[in-house]
Amino acid sequence: MTRYQHLATLLAERIEHGLYRHGEKLPSVRSLSQEHGVSISTVQQAYQVLETLQLITPQPRSGYFVAPRKAKPPVPAMSRPVQRPVDVTQWDEVLTLLDARTDKEIIAFGGGAPDLNQPTLKPLWKEMSRIAQHQVMDALSYDPLPGQQELREQVARLMLDGGTSLNAEEIVITAGCHPALSLALMAVCDPGDIVAVESPCFYGTMQLLRGLDIKAIEIPTDPETGISIEALELALEQWPIKGVILVPNCQNPLGFIMPEARKKAALSLAQRHDIVIFEDDIYGELATDYPRPSTIKSYDIDGRVLLCSSLTKTVAPGLRIGWIAPGRYLDRVIHKKYAAIGTNVPSTQLAVAAFIRDGHYHRHVRRMRQVYQQRLAVYTCWVRQYFPCNICVTRPQGGFLLWVELPESVDMVCVSRALCRLKIQIAPGSLFSASGKYRNCLRLNCALPPDEERREAIKQLGATIHNALEE
Amino acid sequence: MTRYQHLATLLAERIEHGLYRHGEKLPSVRSLSQEHGVSISTVQQAYQVLETLQLITPQPRSGYFVAPRKAKPPVPAMSRPVQRPVDVTQWDEVLTLLDARTDKEIIAFGGGAPDLNQPTLKPLWKEMSRIAQHQVMDALSYDPLPGQQELREQVARLMLDGGTSLNAEEIVITAGCHPALSLALMAVCDPGDIVAVESPCFYGTMQLLRGLDIKAIEIPTDPETGISIEALELALEQWPIKGVILVPNCQNPLGFIMPEARKKAALSLAQRHDIVIFEDDIYGELATDYPRPSTIKSYDIDGRVLLCSSLTKTVAPGLRIGWIAPGRYLDRVIHKKYAAIGTNVPSTQLAVAAFIRDGHYHRHVRRMRQVYQQRLAVYTCWVRQYFPCNICVTRPQGGFLLWVELPESVDMVCVSRALCRLKIQIAPGSLFSASGKYRNCLRLNCALPPDEERREAIKQLGATIHNALEE
Repeated sequence: MTRYQHLATLLAERIEHGLYRHGEKLPSVRSLSQEHGVSISTVQQAYQVLETLQLITPQPRSGYFVAPRKAKPPVPAMSRPVQRPVDVTQWDEVLTLLDARTDKEIIAFGGGAPDLNQPTLKPLWKEMSRIAQHQVMDALSYDPLPGQQELREQVARLMLDGGTSLNAEEIVITAGCHPALSLALMAVCDPGDIVAVESPCFYGTMQLLRGLDIKAIEIPTDPETGISIEALELALEQWPIKGVILVPNCQNPLGFIMPEARKKAALSLAQRHDIVIFEDDIYGELATDYPRPSTIKSYDIDGRVLLCSSLTKTVAPGLRIGWIAPGRYLDRVIHKKYAAIGTNVPSTQLAVAAFIRDGHYHRHVRRMRQVYQQRLAVYTCWVRQYFPCNICVTRPQGGFLLWVELPESVDMVCVSRALCRLKIQIAPGSLFSASGKYRNCLRLNCALPPDEERREAIKQLGATIHNALEE
Repeated sequence: MTRYQHLATLLAERIEHGLYRHGEKLPSVRSLSQEHGVSISTVQQAYQVLETLQLITPQPRSGYFVAPRKAKPPVPAMSRPVQRPVDVTQWDEVLTLLDARTDKEIIAFGGGAPDLNQPTLKPLWKEMSRIAQHQVMDALSYDPLPGQQELREQVARLMLDGGTSLNAEEIVITAGCHPALSLALMAVCDPGDIVAVESPCFYGTMQLLRGLDIKAIEIPTDPETGISIEALELALEQWPIKGVILVPNCQNPLGFIMPEARKKAALSLAQRHDIVIFEDDIYGELATDYPRPSTIKSYDIDGRVLLCSSLTKTVAPGLRIGWIAPGRYLDRVIHKKYAAIGTNVPSTQLAVAAFIRDGHYHRHVRRMRQVYQQRLAVYTCWVRQYFPCNICVTRPQGGFLLWVELPESVDMVCVSRALCRLKIQIAPGSLFSASGKYRNCLRLNCALPPDEERREAIKQLGATIHNALEE
């Protein structure tokens, strides 16, 4: 974190805690500069950040004042999905969203791509170039079926941060978290089986279920504490459910982190009903709090948790590097990997193994955690400013996704069609439900810099929603 | 091809056609050098090649003589598999073979890896390095679901050589031929379905069937002309078969190219019985004859041929670049790609698209066709020399694989265990049958240079087989 970002965070916290009160004049630039031993321009930059966040307002010739405290929009209530097994729909809608990836003119808030334009990624490019220049033969050869040994060792080291102690041999490299989950489902389920999911749930995960002919049962989920353990238990008593897919850390799209007690409760429920947990930790490393929250896998004693993750959100999607720690399903996962997907690209594995080994990964993730936290704050601010006032917004505890719930009458599927013409893309909430619920919701990707172009796009988005409300 | 290789081929052809007869003295080095306008050392190198191939023998102080013509071992007869649908077995045996990939001390004749140590691959390394040095952002971004547009266009151009005229939009990039076939099977079949295969058939393909719970029915196949159309027809009349997997060009493991009339007959049979053809063209570009043989897809008029191929054998396995032209199943393949496997690594696609566009691919493949042809000749020679005499050996029309049939009493599964201790790896024939037939056969990978170490290994292999015969 740069100095001015550090200072801005410090001041924002003081305002948050009431040390500087509404309407109060803030210290002068000069005095802050002396107090913190930083340059005048650093203080000025910090104040600009706070102004963008609408925490302070400048008054000509008098300095900065604490802005009137606007009530934060409430968090959405616990979701109320249809609680019976259903076939996943929404494929055409997902395909439309994916197709827009290639149109570079679109301002994309719809997908899940991270920011790749960061100086801390330079060592990765350098390593990729080194491998090509030295013609490292392994880069063009067949990959070992479980992936490059060196990378598996580095991943085992990373997993310690989430409390999971495994050796490299218990980890299988995959081309992302998506194929990791696919393998996990293939290893455990047969066509026609039922799997429980959080509601809302990432559309890609639900399309995996559809592809494997598995039925989804959506479980009520709280945007601050996660899946309702009670509702899950009820479902387990009613239906022959094979497993539950959980994203306990920085869930997509809601951004919550399950409290540790709930993680343990979910696991002990799984044990009692002898089901498996498919744990998706793809955003776990981007949790705002440090050290990062633990995985459910870290409490697993009998190998029933299949932990899936990747470097897609933390480093880059184009690496296609993920992994699965499949517990007791290791042999089945290895077979399914060969018998459905095949081996991986070695060159990106070799590059990333060095990137992690040499400490560049941790430096990069540390930076991105803070970058995304600030960006989420700015985009939240804009949503509050440009969207109708009777909305609910999540308070993500990490990652870079925001979930907005609009009044029931707004149909985001229609709105998103209108937005297409404006070259603005969002993900309508219906994608995140097996049966197309949440049409009055949307997910916003806040990974990219909140510049003027994007502020303008959020403004237009707000205007389009206002129009939809009035119709 | 270098000058001496060119000259060696020319002389070998003259011997083959009887222009120089058995026992006849060959022209002196000096006179050949004058006749062909090449250096003395070029002629000497050419004569060395012919000596290795046992076509000529040196006699001290008199020069080179045409060697006594040894009868070539016969080609194996038409295969006679069990002709009913069975579950594919042999997974543990395949896994053992795959695991050996990582042991660099093993002399590997078992796998299907090509030779990567070739100067014509330099432009590919250069392009990979250029992408990393210029930090081409697309390399780290999400790949479009059907793959990089530029690569799809280059693949469409390549496919013209096999007689297939398609546009880029009809092609989906995959991480190799293996996932391409996997997608093809997923798009067409359900668990419990029956698919016909050539017998013997590549073990990887059969494990795909196993992974998807599809039954295999093995069809008698001739090592020189391919699958028996009559036997296939009989099977189609008896069983509800969904499709047939064919490798019409340089089949793995037999090396045949189906005559064009048979390709057409197979297609018209598929039309009459309304089944699909899964066409695997992975070795097609390595056919000895130029121009390359056509694909069955090139005769397809109603989109029932799903053509799968890759750059694994022609360029490098580590690129993980393959494709599928799925005909009428395009939409289903796109969905299955998202819903089971996910997107691909863009960086290798970008590098290879440039490699093809700039003409390096064709130069490389032209070279490798000849390199592998010569190596196959040398390894065939060694097999004749060191193996028992009552064997059958294929005469591959391309690729780099040799299939050897030993007397019934030899169990190559046991022999391969003995070979393990000698750090020599072959692929026992049983892997190439759904039910573990062909235990008296083996497949030899002849892609790597026939140097002294490998000659010694083939010699040891021969000795081990001799021992097994005597037991």
